[in-house]
Amino acid sequence: MSWLDTTGVEWTADPAALAVARLDRSGVEPDGTPSAVVFPRTAADVQAVLRGASATRTPVVPRGAGTALTGATTAGAGEIVLDLSRMNRILDLRPDDGIAVAEPGVITADLDRAAAAAGLAYAPDPASVEISTIGGNIATNAGGLRCAKYGVTRDAVLGLDVVLADGRLISTGRATLKGVAGYDLTGLFVGSEGTLGVVVSATLRLRPLPAPTATIAATYPSLAAAADASVALTAARIQPVMAELLDAATLAALGLSGAALLIVQVDDDPAPAEAVLKPGAVELRSSTDPAEAATLLAARRQALPAIERLGRPLIEDIAVPRSRMADAIRSIEEIAHRHDVRICTLAHAGDGNLHPIIVTDRDAIAPAAHRAAEDIFALALDLGGTVTGEHGVGTLKRAWLARELGPDSHALQQQLKAVFDPLNILNPGKAL
Amino acid sequence: MSWLDTTGVEWTADPAALAVARLDRSGVEPDGTPSAVVFPRTAADVQAVLRGASATRTPVVPRGAGTALTGATTAGAGEIVLDLSRMNRILDLRPDDGIAVAEPGVITADLDRAAAAAGLAYAPDPASVEISTIGGNIATNAGGLRCAKYGVTRDAVLGLDVVLADGRLISTGRATLKGVAGYDLTGLFVGSEGTLGVVVSATLRLRPLPAPTATIAATYPSLAAAADASVALTAARIQPVMAELLDAATLAALGLSGAALLIVQVDDDPAPAEAVLKPGAVELRSSTDPAEAATLLAARRQALPAIERLGRPLIEDIAVPRSRMADAIRSIEEIAHRHDVRICTLAHAGDGNLHPIIVTDRDAIAPAAHRAAEDIFALALDLGGTVTGEHGVGTLKRAWLARELGPDSHALQQQLKAVFDPLNILNPGKAL
Ligand SMILES: Cc1cc2nc3c(=O)[nH]c(=O)nc-3n(C[C@H](O)[C@H](O)[C@H](O)COP(=O)(O)OP(=O)(O)OC[C@H]3O[C@@H](n4cnc5c(N)ncnc54)[C@H](O)[C@@H]3O)c2cc1C
Ligand SMILES: Cc1cc2nc3c(=O)[nH]c(=O)nc-3n(C[C@H](O)[C@H](O)[C@H](O)COP(=O)(O)OP(=O)(O)OC[C@H]3O[C@@H](n4cnc5c(N)ncnc54)[C@H](O)[C@@H]3O)c2cc1C
Repeated sequence: MSWLDTTGVEWTADPAALAVARLDRSGVEPDGTPSAVVFPRTAADVQAVLRGASATRTPVVPRGAGTALTGATTAGAGEIVLDLSRMNRILDLRPDDGIAVAEPGVITADLDRAAAAAGLAYAPDPASVEISTIGGNIATNAGGLRCAKYGVTRDAVLGLDVVLADGRLISTGRATLKGVAGYDLTGLFVGSEGTLGVVVSATLRLRPLPAPTATIAATYPSLAAAADASVALTAARIQPVMAELLDAATLAALGLSGAALLIVQVDDDPAPAEAVLKPGAVELRSSTDPAEAATLLAARRQALPAIERLGRPLIEDIAVPRSRMADAIRSIEEIAHRHDVRICTLAHAGDGNLHPIIVTDRDAIAPAAHRAAEDIFALALDLGGTVTGEHGVGTLKRAWLARELGPDSHALQQQLKAVFDPLNILNPGKAL
Repeated sequence: MSWLDTTGVEWTADPAALAVARLDRSGVEPDGTPSAVVFPRTAADVQAVLRGASATRTPVVPRGAGTALTGATTAGAGEIVLDLSRMNRILDLRPDDGIAVAEPGVITADLDRAAAAAGLAYAPDPASVEISTIGGNIATNAGGLRCAKYGVTRDAVLGLDVVLADGRLISTGRATLKGVAGYDLTGLFVGSEGTLGVVVSATLRLRPLPAPTATIAATYPSLAAAADASVALTAARIQPVMAELLDAATLAALGLSGAALLIVQVDDDPAPAEAVLKPGAVELRSSTDPAEAATLLAARRQALPAIERLGRPLIEDIAVPRSRMADAIRSIEEIAHRHDVRICTLAHAGDGNLHPIIVTDRDAIAPAAHRAAEDIFALALDLGGTVTGEHGVGTLKRAWLARELGPDSHALQQQLKAVFDPLNILNPGKAL
């Protein structure tokens, strides 16, 4: 690895560090072990590493916190991992401009807390907000709970500093809230899973978010009734901040009974939402008190840990037109039955994004889980949806991406990749 | 023009039609006159025309309503104009899914009215909402009055059907509210000014928008005081739906006195906004009544017609960090003085987007106006801003785009153009 020494950037080939850096949270096992983990501290460090990688044709896997659920952050033999977690400073926070500038390794919740100290918020709040990084969120276009109302990561990214595969540093976008100068390179890097360039700094939008006014938890006699209730909110011109749906299997994992639980949070007048959600509900609790709201939300927050106690989860992620959510969950139940696996489904009901969590063995994800996942992807496309709502493609969904895009779009995407990374050294074999 | 006949698509070479189709609203005079205007009715028509154009290397200028202010929709000798205004059907409107599917020639306000009938809204509302098309809005990433709170066109576009330069038809994005499958081609087409492909159908996000609760019009003793008041809204965690600033020159054009007028609309509790705007104001009127709100907004709506009565306007469009707005307007006053031109400035104060309107001769835009505009672009970049907030690049700002992007980004953009349009037949000489 002598070329890494010439870069002057800290790196290690310590087996324990490599063992951590080769995996993300997907359960995907890469072939072999990467040869090094590199820890840049500055954009210039990243440039030096990518220049060396280009010269030596070494594949580079950018890494934030490694919480990806898709295999996007796995690294195997012959690859090096570019760990951006030490570039973790908030470089600027300008409340009057509604803007923050952050390095990629900043933990998302830390940025939101810094914004909160100025009376603002960084809106995108993936459930992994306390353990994932801004750079990883950008590279996956992470969604979150309040994105139904306040947008996904893409909507909060105004500009980027990106190191290209050959080591050039470019700035995209702008430091203003609005701008249309040139093609939207910023948007192209968002969601590109580390395959087009390495984000070394991001200009992000901060906004004033009202405090939630009420949290409403309602149980329904059937999944269809709960899904209908969430759709009825739109019909009544109500835009909830969050609308989370838990199916019977998830409730069972939590030790709760019932067919479906819908948890809705609003930040305006709660009465209309309550009026819409009440009619079909078995039980409805609504609270304006933040402490009680936390209790009502606890079921959602504890769902994944509860499911993990049942076995090894394969966390899936599809999106369908909102009106097809009930159909989707019913079909997922059939798929579980067909493959004899347990599937607990959580949904961001506000935007039709479903997380069917397939639970099998304790030690490794069983083949039946992957077969069930294939059926779930086919279902998503059948219902006019997409094979990934927010987690991305990684290695797990590459074949499905080609199916969803069709040959012409897929070919265009490959041509774009070639423009940015002609040697194919940036996270090769991922996303496309 | 025999190849056009072989496409089976209606077209004309009538001089009156050509005279209209060669211009947009920028005042830019293209060299000569295009040879034909073509009126497709279907995506297949567009494909046929682009196949013929590729075969004959004929440059094609896509056209919606021709309201661009940048020269983007001008067409000269040797070019044909692809007029999409007859593809103007709303193909689908699914309130439960929060989605509409529209052809490119749909007038934006018509879509918003159709959405309103279902209790929803199409949020992007450029001042040209009644005279511009969805396709043109997408190709320029149009902003609008309520985009401070509800986003620009980009934020409302979920997926597109696009005919490429060689006649292939691709679908980008998705019909769901959320999705991250593949690189964001949708975002790349948004704002690309007809240079990457022709939009033949768009899947758009509809959302429930609360009715405005109050419109507040406040005059200030100085421009700085008005700009400070608008920035103070953010500090107080208030997100107005719209915040429009009119300078003294604009007020004079309207026959009004005063140094600056700020018009703010909110759709939540108006009391906090009133409390923030009151202290420095000379006079403040606030109304919850829609009819009176319209009166308060009239100054903003009548500003452009009033300015047009003074002479021929060159409508400029820069954006700066919000805290630099007062500096920007002060410098614009100096620029007006230096070049001995009248400049009236309107600003979307919520997002730092300024429209300095340079008024000179009645017959043609005077050279001094263009010289003043150059100084305004330099000012925008000096203040950390952009040379275009929402109108785009067209032909007028091409040199400035290169300056803003820098050589590496600019080169990348040219490579992207070559991927989509290797023969350079789509709106050549625009945007890049
Ligand atoms: C418990 C749990 C809950 C989750 N909840 C959500 C959720 O609600 N919504 C959601 O969308 N996701 C969720 N995820 C998935 C995951 O957290 C997100 O994808 C997150 O954005 C990944 O961030 P990270 O820092 O861990 O990135 P990593 O996993 O390190 O990297 C993700 C991808 O980004 C690339 N990358 C990382 N940093 C950079 C950079 N600086 N430049 C270029 N490329 C880079 C990597 O190469 C990889 O392709 C969850 C995961 C877990 C484990
Ligand atoms: C009075 C007035 C007020 C305005 N206010 C605003 C405002 O508030 N905010 C704002 O952003 N702009 C504003 N504009 C500018 C203009 O209205 C917008 O840029 C609008 O989006 C243009 O729409 P159009 O249908 O007229 O497009 P056109 O002018 O016909 O075309 C604009 C660009 O889009 C391309 N194009 C058009 N249709 C397609 C298609 N289907 N596929 C691919 N490319 C296509 C054209 O080639 C051209 O490059 C205003 C203009 C006027 C005259």
